[in-house]
Amino acid sequence: MKNNPQIMVTGGLGINGIWVTRKLVEQGIRPVLFDVRDDFSLAGDWLRDKVDFVFGDVTSMDSLTEAIATYKPSCIIHMAAAISGFHQDLRKTFAVNAMGTVNLLEAAAQGGVKRVVFTSSRAAYGSITGPSAHPTYVPIREEHPAWPANAYDVGKLASEVMGNNYAADTDLEFVALRFAAIYGPGKLKTHGEFGILSKMVEKSLAGEEIDIPRGGEQQDDVIYVEDVAEAVVLAALHVKPSHTLYNISRNQGTTLHDFADAVRASIPEARITIGPGLDYLGVGSSYFGVMDNTRAREDLGFTPKYDLKAGVAAYISRLKETRP
Amino acid sequence: MKNNPQIMVTGGLGINGIWVTRKLVEQGIRPVLFDVRDDFSLAGDWLRDKVDFVFGDVTSMDSLTEAIATYKPSCIIHMAAAISGFHQDLRKTFAVNAMGTVNLLEAAAQGGVKRVVFTSSRAAYGSITGPSAHPTYVPIREEHPAWPANAYDVGKLASEVMGNNYAADTDLEFVALRFAAIYGPGKLKTHGEFGILSKMVEKSLAGEEIDIPRGGEQQDDVIYVEDVAEAVVLAALHVKPSHTLYNISRNQGTTLHDFADAVRASIPEARITIGPGLDYLGVGSSYFGVMDNTRAREDLGFTPKYDLKAGVAAYISRLKETRP
Repeated sequence: MKNNPQIMVTGGLGINGIWVTRKLVEQGIRPVLFDVRDDFSLAGDWLRDKVDFVFGDVTSMDSLTEAIATYKPSCIIHMAAAISGFHQDLRKTFAVNAMGTVNLLEAAAQGGVKRVVFTSSRAAYGSITGPSAHPTYVPIREEHPAWPANAYDVGKLASEVMGNNYAADTDLEFVALRFAAIYGPGKLKTHGEFGILSKMVEKSLAGEEIDIPRGGEQQDDVIYVEDVAEAVVLAALHVKPSHTLYNISRNQGTTLHDFADAVRASIPEARITIGPGLDYLGVGSSYFGVMDNTRAREDLGFTPKYDLKAGVAAYISRLKETRP
Repeated sequence: MKNNPQIMVTGGLGINGIWVTRKLVEQGIRPVLFDVRDDFSLAGDWLRDKVDFVFGDVTSMDSLTEAIATYKPSCIIHMAAAISGFHQDLRKTFAVNAMGTVNLLEAAAQGGVKRVVFTSSRAAYGSITGPSAHPTYVPIREEHPAWPANAYDVGKLASEVMGNNYAADTDLEFVALRFAAIYGPGKLKTHGEFGILSKMVEKSLAGEEIDIPRGGEQQDDVIYVEDVAEAVVLAALHVKPSHTLYNISRNQGTTLHDFADAVRASIPEARITIGPGLDYLGVGSSYFGVMDNTRAREDLGFTPKYDLKAGVAAYISRLKETRP
């Protein structure tokens, strides 16, 4: 990427996107945000003057084509997604997360965009079986088979496959990042029960007791949202990534007990109880695992900066900053 | 399914769909054909009076919803698809094959349709590795990992995953059939180089010489289109299939030499030469394999009726019938 690239971010005001947007601004870049809502509440209104904003929806080719023609981005970071539980609006999830990505890839390829960075998820692996599942948790490499089981999973996998095809057939570069379980401000509100880590932080901060009935033995790979944002910016600004797919993770198994200890390090009075067993999200224990991040370390120069304690501490200080 | 069910067929005038339509008509059913074109040329105009026809496009929710409200099908056989090479219109392929299926599933679930039968493909397995690849060709079971690599592959896989999710979340039943390589009249014209088996039949019938430069050692599982149509009708009329996914194949490895012998049995003067090596389609030899059809045999009562010689003979007699 050239110096001072023009970067467009879809979903750049969302709970993950906002940290990417901030990081770009901190690096002196003025990103173009392409979003369905101009809700700056996750960052604060100070951010409005630091970015350009386009109302747009990835389900509309026209709005993508027009935004790309207007701002001529060299790179699009595509983070817009319908957040989906296991039993939500199936068609909407697919229309936004899969078809929306394909629309964006098509508009980008036609509009002369150099690179699309797609924020995928460990969900693309779907159900994890064999040695990478409980109790052995052998770190999952990018070559691991994918068993997408729900609309969210298959939307991520389909987006990746389509990105690879656009990269093969056009001049567009494509990089997909599969994130481990992300924790950070805002997730409790938007992700409901899937925001269980956020629940532990935010309810503890509010002085509330947390009782998680089951799942204390489940390990998962969890990562603080600012580490994720760092990886996204690295992928966007990298001269030329060697691969089209990277795990972005801490490469470590973490239990809810480990996370509760990190919360207690910041909030000693936290009252958290966790029951035994697996699958604290009620999604099937095969959806948890540890992701090998060797490729991202070696190729993108990615290093997670936040261990659990530092991540929770940063989370709390960000919360205080944005909730005056 | 009740007696005399109302059945809607998307893509029911296409090269595979037409045989499903004929089979339904032969069984005394008057299917509703939902299609973007009213081109009856693959069957002949005699079929027009035996079916109802609705102009419609699966990329439009409205046209699906209206057709379902009008005809109230208990079952939809979904065969409409954009035929795709490896480097064709990526967005259109995905919009029709993946999003189109999701539109149909949503409209079916909302419209009280009992069952959707989706005609998938061995393409959903994508790239085959390990013992199921050349040279061992261990028959692929439905549980085999899927490695979708192109827009067509991932459109099939995504459609299946979404169908399973609709079946889990709504009253809709879903059955996907993964077909082996299909040969039959019309495929040469519509599938171009992918219609290599059709090329051998139709060019031999026209007295032309065929020279296939490579691929004589490649094995694949090939099936005559009327066997495929039989499987589709079985899945549509079955009381309640136990699974949502079935391989529909002959469960046998076939080389181009085997197929050429079958052509010669019908057309002794055929001049076919085949070079050595693998991958006669130029798509990568990992896209070929033998598919285990045990599940379809046991559960749907499916038995392929056409061996290679009988399939080629039937193909030729159908060709003569529709080209007066």
